[in-house]
Amino acid sequence: MLSKNTLKFIKSLQQKKFRKQEQLFFVEGAKNVTELLLSDYEVSQVLFTPQFGNENEGLLKSLEAKAYEVSQSTLESVGSFQTNSAALAVAKIKPNSPIELESEEWAIALDDVKDPGNLGTIIRIADWYGIQKLFLSEESAEFYNPKVLHASMGSFTRTKVFYTDLKSHFEKLSLPIYGAYLEGESIYETKFGKGGIILMGNESNGISEELEPMVSHKITIPRFGQAESLNVAVATAIFCDNIKRSSK
Amino acid sequence: MLSKNTLKFIKSLQQKKFRKQEQLFFVEGAKNVTELLLSDYEVSQVLFTPQFGNENEGLLKSLEAKAYEVSQSTLESVGSFQTNSAALAVAKIKPNSPIELESEEWAIALDDVKDPGNLGTIIRIADWYGIQKLFLSEESAEFYNPKVLHASMGSFTRTKVFYTDLKSHFEKLSLPIYGAYLEGESIYETKFGKGGIILMGNESNGISEELEPMVSHKITIPRFGQAESLNVAVATAIFCDNIKRSSK
Repeated sequence: MLSKNTLKFIKSLQQKKFRKQEQLFFVEGAKNVTELLLSDYEVSQVLFTPQFGNENEGLLKSLEAKAYEVSQSTLESVGSFQTNSAALAVAKIKPNSPIELESEEWAIALDDVKDPGNLGTIIRIADWYGIQKLFLSEESAEFYNPKVLHASMGSFTRTKVFYTDLKSHFEKLSLPIYGAYLEGESIYETKFGKGGIILMGNESNGISEELEPMVSHKITIPRFGQAESLNVAVATAIFCDNIKRSSK
Repeated sequence: MLSKNTLKFIKSLQQKKFRKQEQLFFVEGAKNVTELLLSDYEVSQVLFTPQFGNENEGLLKSLEAKAYEVSQSTLESVGSFQTNSAALAVAKIKPNSPIELESEEWAIALDDVKDPGNLGTIIRIADWYGIQKLFLSEESAEFYNPKVLHASMGSFTRTKVFYTDLKSHFEKLSLPIYGAYLEGESIYETKFGKGGIILMGNESNGISEELEPMVSHKITIPRFGQAESLNVAVATAIFCDNIKRSSK
């Protein structure tokens, strides 16, 4: 039986404070919930509508988590979605552990990307391009924010993230760092190696000064018109596309 | 003197119904308002904070519109922004007129792109890549929606849009149409000509079946990982980048 206290508890996970305290988070919607159930995340609770239950009988049967059939309005009362006719699941936050990189591997580093929608979109883009390792400065948006997870469209389940001080982290790495700048070498002329870090800066201020000396290649996306800048997620996609294209 | 009725009137322009009825719209924030004032839009009213007034004295002096110095809270009470310490301006909607294309020119067509944030981001991307003509199906998001204009970051002032029935419009065109599909020729292998239409489909359903026969090239962005799809604005950026890159 799903108690009022449990609903209240799940709702509290909308707030970062409680996510941190409980080391739990939730995801919403059919896509994210099914991806979560198929992933290696430790799921503790699943709330689902009868419709989602019918469509995902097998998935729910093999589940070790507590599963509750609820109404759409119950889902909407605890989650952050205005409409959710599918499901919501609670799972355990993974520890913030260092990520090892191979010498011929690509990873993305974000220097204070603050907007949750941007972070989620970047996770989805990275997953499209087969990049599953992300280094985030400690001031970046929080990975388990419902808006991040939603925008990632399930790709968060395949992404490894490590929040760290980028400067001291980069000092230990021997991979080239390709930084996105408004002025630099054209990305069309850049000879990318077989691996490295794609470094993207903050939405307003770009890459911070303290990281600049560690950037091995300052790269620019050529501009043909008059817009002042590109959104950071869009710029990340163009970086990934140019890199993967050149490796084909 | 700025009356309560005027404030109420401006606020009503948050709704599509009143924008349509009055043929007026508003934009908010320093970037969009300054770009609007420098554009060929017919501006009727500007509300600005003392700070914005100081920073843009010249721009406001040469203005023919009515200009009112107001408090930040007044701006926030009429506009859609939670915080707006700069300005808000009301201007006249441009007529929905057909756009002519040169034989060696690129334009973007959107088949029911519904999300205002996506449309605004696409306008910004197009402007970055020097593409200033947009054809929109009649069910697409509305250009003058505050969320569209905001996401465009001022680029809307340089963009020509024409809402039309895409099918009958395409029938009259002799330019190639490059459509974004999940299955098609790799964009890395595509030989783009010197001009044409980049056609992007709806967020959930892609390009509608009735337009499919008119697509001269079905193009795919190669996937290297596991995400199911890319956001439509991100995919538009990758199209623009690959096209412009190949024309360099």
